[in-house]
Amino acid sequence: MTPLTHPSLTTLDIDSLEAELRHQSPQKILERAFSLVDSIAISFSGAEDVVLIDMAHRINPEVKVFSLDTGRLHAETYRFIERVRKHYNLSIEMMYPDAAAVEALVKEKGLFSFFEDGHNECCGIRKVAPLRRKLATLDGWITGQRKDQNPSTRAGIPVIQIDHAFSTEDRPLLKFNPLANWSSADVWMYIRTYAVPYNLLHEQGFISIGCEPCTRPVLPNQHEREGRWWWEDAGKKECGLHAVNDAAASA
Amino acid sequence: MTPLTHPSLTTLDIDSLEAELRHQSPQKILERAFSLVDSIAISFSGAEDVVLIDMAHRINPEVKVFSLDTGRLHAETYRFIERVRKHYNLSIEMMYPDAAAVEALVKEKGLFSFFEDGHNECCGIRKVAPLRRKLATLDGWITGQRKDQNPSTRAGIPVIQIDHAFSTEDRPLLKFNPLANWSSADVWMYIRTYAVPYNLLHEQGFISIGCEPCTRPVLPNQHEREGRWWWEDAGKKECGLHAVNDAAASA
Amino acid sequence: MTPLTHPSLTTLDIDSLEAELRHQSPQKILERAFSLVDSIAISFSGAEDVVLIDMAHRINPEVKVFSLDTGRLHAETYRFIERVRKHYNLSIEMMYPDAAAVEALVKEKGLFSFFEDGHNECCGIRKVAPLRRKLATLDGWITGQRKDQNPSTRAGIPVIQIDHAFSTEDRPLLKFNPLANWSSADVWMYIRTYAVPYNLLHEQGFISIGCEPCTRPVLPNQHEREGRWWWEDAGKKECGLHAVNDAAASA
Amino acid sequence: MTPLTHPSLTTLDIDSLEAELRHQSPQKILERAFSLVDSIAISFSGAEDVVLIDMAHRINPEVKVFSLDTGRLHAETYRFIERVRKHYNLSIEMMYPDAAAVEALVKEKGLFSFFEDGHNECCGIRKVAPLRRKLATLDGWITGQRKDQNPSTRAGIPVIQIDHAFSTEDRPLLKFNPLANWSSADVWMYIRTYAVPYNLLHEQGFISIGCEPCTRPVLPNQHEREGRWWWEDAGKKECGLHAVNDAAASA
Repeated sequence: MTPLTHPSLTTLDIDSLEAELRHQSPQKILERAFSLVDSIAISFSGAEDVVLIDMAHRINPEVKVFSLDTGRLHAETYRFIERVRKHYNLSIEMMYPDAAAVEALVKEKGLFSFFEDGHNECCGIRKVAPLRRKLATLDGWITGQRKDQNPSTRAGIPVIQIDHAFSTEDRPLLKFNPLANWSSADVWMYIRTYAVPYNLLHEQGFISIGCEPCTRPVLPNQHEREGRWWWEDAGKKECGLHAVNDAAASA
Repeated sequence: MTPLTHPSLTTLDIDSLEAELRHQSPQKILERAFSLVDSIAISFSGAEDVVLIDMAHRINPEVKVFSLDTGRLHAETYRFIERVRKHYNLSIEMMYPDAAAVEALVKEKGLFSFFEDGHNECCGIRKVAPLRRKLATLDGWITGQRKDQNPSTRAGIPVIQIDHAFSTEDRPLLKFNPLANWSSADVWMYIRTYAVPYNLLHEQGFISIGCEPCTRPVLPNQHEREGRWWWEDAGKKECGLHAVNDAAASA
Repeated sequence: MTPLTHPSLTTLDIDSLEAELRHQSPQKILERAFSLVDSIAISFSGAEDVVLIDMAHRINPEVKVFSLDTGRLHAETYRFIERVRKHYNLSIEMMYPDAAAVEALVKEKGLFSFFEDGHNECCGIRKVAPLRRKLATLDGWITGQRKDQNPSTRAGIPVIQIDHAFSTEDRPLLKFNPLANWSSADVWMYIRTYAVPYNLLHEQGFISIGCEPCTRPVLPNQHEREGRWWWEDAGKKECGLHAVNDAAASA
Repeated sequence: MTPLTHPSLTTLDIDSLEAELRHQSPQKILERAFSLVDSIAISFSGAEDVVLIDMAHRINPEVKVFSLDTGRLHAETYRFIERVRKHYNLSIEMMYPDAAAVEALVKEKGLFSFFEDGHNECCGIRKVAPLRRKLATLDGWITGQRKDQNPSTRAGIPVIQIDHAFSTEDRPLLKFNPLANWSSADVWMYIRTYAVPYNLLHEQGFISIGCEPCTRPVLPNQHEREGRWWWEDAGKKECGLHAVNDAAASA
């Protein structure tokens, strides 16, 4: 198949790409992503998606990485992101929320409004808006989403898709999910085999890691998603980064 | 089958009991244990084997429970054992090591000799000897051992057996392992369904829990046994409570 | 003495005010501050300066409070600020740093640049600029500074002063330090006597509390300031909020 | 003054020794203690009395040290005692409580009886009896008691005394308190100046350190003794090691 320059990609191309890549390894998917799209970056959450950085760095030491600094991450997560930056000699771009938006929310509702009226407003300001600002500069992004992370919302995620949530009229955005078909066990086997640095919260019972007030450790054999926004319904446990596409995928 | 009084049990009887109980629920096995043996008690480790206490207490509120207080348990474990005692209104007998034996070991080798020459000497003094003293007063004991806890040493444990390690010449000792065929997931489903109290260390990444210096949290998807005596070979990770029988079972 | 409207205050007035208030209680100083200046607010650090809020709230339940959310505070501090907000039924304004400034610093130097080239650049972006933005809307501010906090830099702070660091050409800014002459022991006696809510970090060995990466607990009898920016000289341990005035005061 | 061999010491001699040593440094008192009594040892609590070990070790590298392992110390304290043992190349004798006594108390009252009927019964079994057993082998012991630790009970402790609580008919026991006149600040100045190893709990807000369930961190400027047996009256806060003598001293 001839490499395509991204702006000319059509839905048909995506379908054939998805068919081509569906059963490939994450590394092959990453390679294809880098060959298809120049302006592309990994979205790093500060958790076990560090495997994407490890894989990508072996393929492309100049890989671009960004992360969403909501201003409420765990101290351990800030330390981990710094450790990753130094370990791979990367520049990790930290996207920061808009001061006026944060100030207005907090002035009206305090610092923990999400416990009272849901996490969407806070995630919208601290995660989605900064992400949108970053994605507007890219033609493709790479995420650590996996089907096994959330049976309600992520069961149908493809390895490649057009990102209908963040594409603009004149700029379609490609989204790659190289780990879609990996299990949590696969990810951790990789981390341990290749001695990939990991967030020390993983040594304290945390599996999925997001903002500090909205993340907690899980019990043995408890599904990792129960450690996130635990006061809300399982079906709503998405912060908005992936929601629109996931809804389409699991429709 | 006619109930047997324990002292007359023969190996043949054990085999047929094992055949009878092999596919029964833990609760059925507990019922049978209580009907077979009068002088019987649950050995409680302070971890997720609390499910045995919950099950047994529903069958027999007078169930006897003992635990081995090595003098080096986690503060959280002491608090948990006390919570269980009050929750079920039980008398939990804490077996304590012999002062002279502990003093001699510590004087010669310090408080962390196990990191240097293995855990057997310390376990022998702090766990096995007090257990032996307790078992000498019983005709049967009930443990929380499960096959899935250690593929190297516990794969073959039966639900009932003669305890060749702790029986004496004139006093055969029956050992029941009602959870032998349950998985960790089964145990935790039970704990959460019945709101059984649990050790708070389980909220900090601990799965298997023993003495404080010899237990650590595991990473996501790491086998629970890797949190115990991690500086030794997997095949040796038994404290001596179950070693002789396990060796026989997996032979 | 006739109450003065603030814009007409002269240095002479300040001197006589200082003479008047120097030996007064913090409560008297707060009362005077509220009577002198309409547009005035307490700057709350999330530490033991909560006593100022408690005192001020008894005098004026509508007291305005702001705090600098650097995006790197301890999780405990965010929880404490929320607790104070609810306890006193206050609106606490959280000033947030400018996204572009934070992003540029972090992109160039990572998340912990202060350990390498000093805390001034980071404090400048995360604390001083948001403070300046807030102070531009006020005629006076009230701080929890005390002489005993830092013998090198705070020994000479007055209870009232013109804030030469943040006044503008056409808008002199008054700064009140009602706790200037209180010791740490006085503050904690007040907190315990009046059951004032306090930051739970104070139960973990923390005395002075700032940003998470730049604060640490101190040992028994260690000066509280040794828990802040401990990799720098004692004489430099100011974040810029008070530096210019302090320099003048101790000159 | 002629050195005395211990068994011949009279009350009069003690008075003149006290007069001689009252204003001496802890080191001088230690030297005198070693010259006066052959069979003497330091009682080490695992807290800041480590300064005694440091001082004594410089005078006499063969100094004998014992500690009371109640079976309920903090994990950090066990690690600290081991660190001290290795740092000074000492043999630290850990005195352990009698198994039958602990088992009987716990069977009857559970693991936290002290919260309900006071700490004396538990301290009696876990601390005082093992101490008595140890002291019966000595002619003198050295403690880290200081007057400033407890204004109610320790204000009058001398630097040397006949231990009326633990002497036997035919064997008077000398007790030395070389730090009696040192303040907490003096002790910590010594620790920091000489880089003496210290219990890491001191970095978490703990000042006085005893058993884990009966010790807690204190707030800034809170008296250290408020971190011990906080549910009891200040005047009773002695574990029985020093009670009889203190009562005499402050009478």
